[in-house]
Amino acid sequence: MTKRVYNFYAGPATLPLAALKKAQEEFLNFSNTGMSILEISHRSKEYAKTHAEASNLVKELMHLPDDYKVMWLQGGASSQFYMVPLNLQDNGKPMEYVNTGTWSTKAIKEAKFYGDVKVVASSEDEKFSYIPKDIVFSDKSAFAHITGNNTIYGTEYHEWPKVSSDVPLVCDMSSHMMNKVIDPKKFGVIYAGAQKNIGPAGVTIVIVREDLLDRVPKDSPIMQKWKTHVDKDSLFNTGPVFPIYMCKLCLEYLKSIGGIPAMEKINRKKAKILYDVIDNSDGFYEGHAKTDSRSLMNVTFNLQTPELEEKCVKEALAKDLVGLKGHRSVGGMRASIYNAMPADGVQALIDFLKGFQQNNQ
Amino acid sequence: MTKRVYNFYAGPATLPLAALKKAQEEFLNFSNTGMSILEISHRSKEYAKTHAEASNLVKELMHLPDDYKVMWLQGGASSQFYMVPLNLQDNGKPMEYVNTGTWSTKAIKEAKFYGDVKVVASSEDEKFSYIPKDIVFSDKSAFAHITGNNTIYGTEYHEWPKVSSDVPLVCDMSSHMMNKVIDPKKFGVIYAGAQKNIGPAGVTIVIVREDLLDRVPKDSPIMQKWKTHVDKDSLFNTGPVFPIYMCKLCLEYLKSIGGIPAMEKINRKKAKILYDVIDNSDGFYEGHAKTDSRSLMNVTFNLQTPELEEKCVKEALAKDLVGLKGHRSVGGMRASIYNAMPADGVQALIDFLKGFQQNNQ
Repeated sequence: MTKRVYNFYAGPATLPLAALKKAQEEFLNFSNTGMSILEISHRSKEYAKTHAEASNLVKELMHLPDDYKVMWLQGGASSQFYMVPLNLQDNGKPMEYVNTGTWSTKAIKEAKFYGDVKVVASSEDEKFSYIPKDIVFSDKSAFAHITGNNTIYGTEYHEWPKVSSDVPLVCDMSSHMMNKVIDPKKFGVIYAGAQKNIGPAGVTIVIVREDLLDRVPKDSPIMQKWKTHVDKDSLFNTGPVFPIYMCKLCLEYLKSIGGIPAMEKINRKKAKILYDVIDNSDGFYEGHAKTDSRSLMNVTFNLQTPELEEKCVKEALAKDLVGLKGHRSVGGMRASIYNAMPADGVQALIDFLKGFQQNNQ
Repeated sequence: MTKRVYNFYAGPATLPLAALKKAQEEFLNFSNTGMSILEISHRSKEYAKTHAEASNLVKELMHLPDDYKVMWLQGGASSQFYMVPLNLQDNGKPMEYVNTGTWSTKAIKEAKFYGDVKVVASSEDEKFSYIPKDIVFSDKSAFAHITGNNTIYGTEYHEWPKVSSDVPLVCDMSSHMMNKVIDPKKFGVIYAGAQKNIGPAGVTIVIVREDLLDRVPKDSPIMQKWKTHVDKDSLFNTGPVFPIYMCKLCLEYLKSIGGIPAMEKINRKKAKILYDVIDNSDGFYEGHAKTDSRSLMNVTFNLQTPELEEKCVKEALAKDLVGLKGHRSVGGMRASIYNAMPADGVQALIDFLKGFQQNNQ
């Protein structure tokens, strides 16, 4: 049996073992072609099947209406930070953003190259430890942008802000796509780097409501237009074949366990029992995010001193609990418990944290 | 033993079996971490080592001078079609291109969004069957762009056009990077989608001479500037971890067999014996590219009728010689014999072609 640790990295992150095993098994001989999936033409019929299945799984699992198009792009969510304002600009109307941390900040910075940006709400005043309430978007903006989950501060939207039906809501779901049931019709655009909750690094899923594809200025570079990629079903140029294939295997696994509703139930339970340890530790562990803004995916917390935190991370590592150090910009600890983190992994972490508290109180 | 065919696809294409086997072997447990390379943080020390090794192999194998920077980007060569003119524009100076086929045409189209483009030479008059001779680039242009090898028409530069020392020569080497020894100092920028001669789809290698990094206008989106990625050693955002890792394994293999000089010798031999079959077929097979412009990588040829071509492709497939159909835009047949195509594969193809001629003459 191969050694296997529990991997709490914030992304790239743990993947379903079943998907990894399947990929390993057929690594030299994909679909009985006598070729690796790495070697096969992106225009071959065998790959075409995988490509279509991957897109169909996204549509099926998320219950996307027919007028929502799925793209598999490259460049990470970071590239969508400029593709969103480029593609959604609307005759000089302001573009509105909520700032809930590092990723929103980067998205805002990039959007400024394309026009007038308004930050309508921010939680910067309290170290991004919460999701702003009562966000008011204008009904005259080009679009309204939010970051659904913040990996660094461990916050997540638990209800979606209201927007006028004239204004598309755009959500960066990189770190929590498919972690809970959502109503896709609330959104104009959803995008996500795959490497946190969906698959490996190297591919970005972009979902766009069809009527929004025509806003992009005609004099924009062809590769930067969503429409180019929608029109060619993400095969305008050679895409990231292997990352898409891996997403397909991971989504198949998600479907096999009951899809997003079943996943949400597991995620809520995993998060609850871990936050309970923090809340019942008499202040030994202190959660960073405010209770009502807590992420189901990234559990951020501190100990009394940086030395104790370092000790905790080190002792966890010795028990094969990997990647628990907080992001360099906030310190402390962070347990990323994405869809693919098994409940047993969270239980192992809980047992460790309780023991560590006992030994170090 | 796993079934293994000879794969003549134009890209994604065949990869060294040794690299594939290594990846398969450690697929669930990378570098004894208890995690797959797909799951490990791009900021972990284990991945950092792979990342650095991949870059160092490019530098070492190509003998890059110290002021040449290596980037691992996403979006394919197609994204460089806009990143090149964006990053290299120079106070309104014209940007000069040679048009040797589909890829050059696309690069030219994208560049027009950034300024004045001049096509200084083209082989469109004869179906892109040759590389123009005596190309004259101006000494007052922002840059001079060529496509080193054309996969579709099967042409390749065998000597580099002259450019003034003030003008950087930019080369799209997607389909022949590292197929022969070159002097990197002749170039300002070299770029290549990896999926033909270097590794799998999903990563693009961009090599830029350092002094060219400051030309990009300040008001350009951050992700579109090469400088952003050079400054962070291609870790500004999460990169395509697995494709980079695979490139590393493939480049290690290239190094193990003697590097580019040894590879060039093998490539010249593989191409020669295959072109000899065409030339000695009394017109049964007819090469598309003119003799002095023939590609070492993509051997394009026709038979007397489309029906015969179809039959030939079909019978080859039955003998596990895969991917021999010509590109849809030119028809005929194409054998892509990149670095990773073993000499035995070319020999098997030759034996088949000779037999096919005997049976169908």
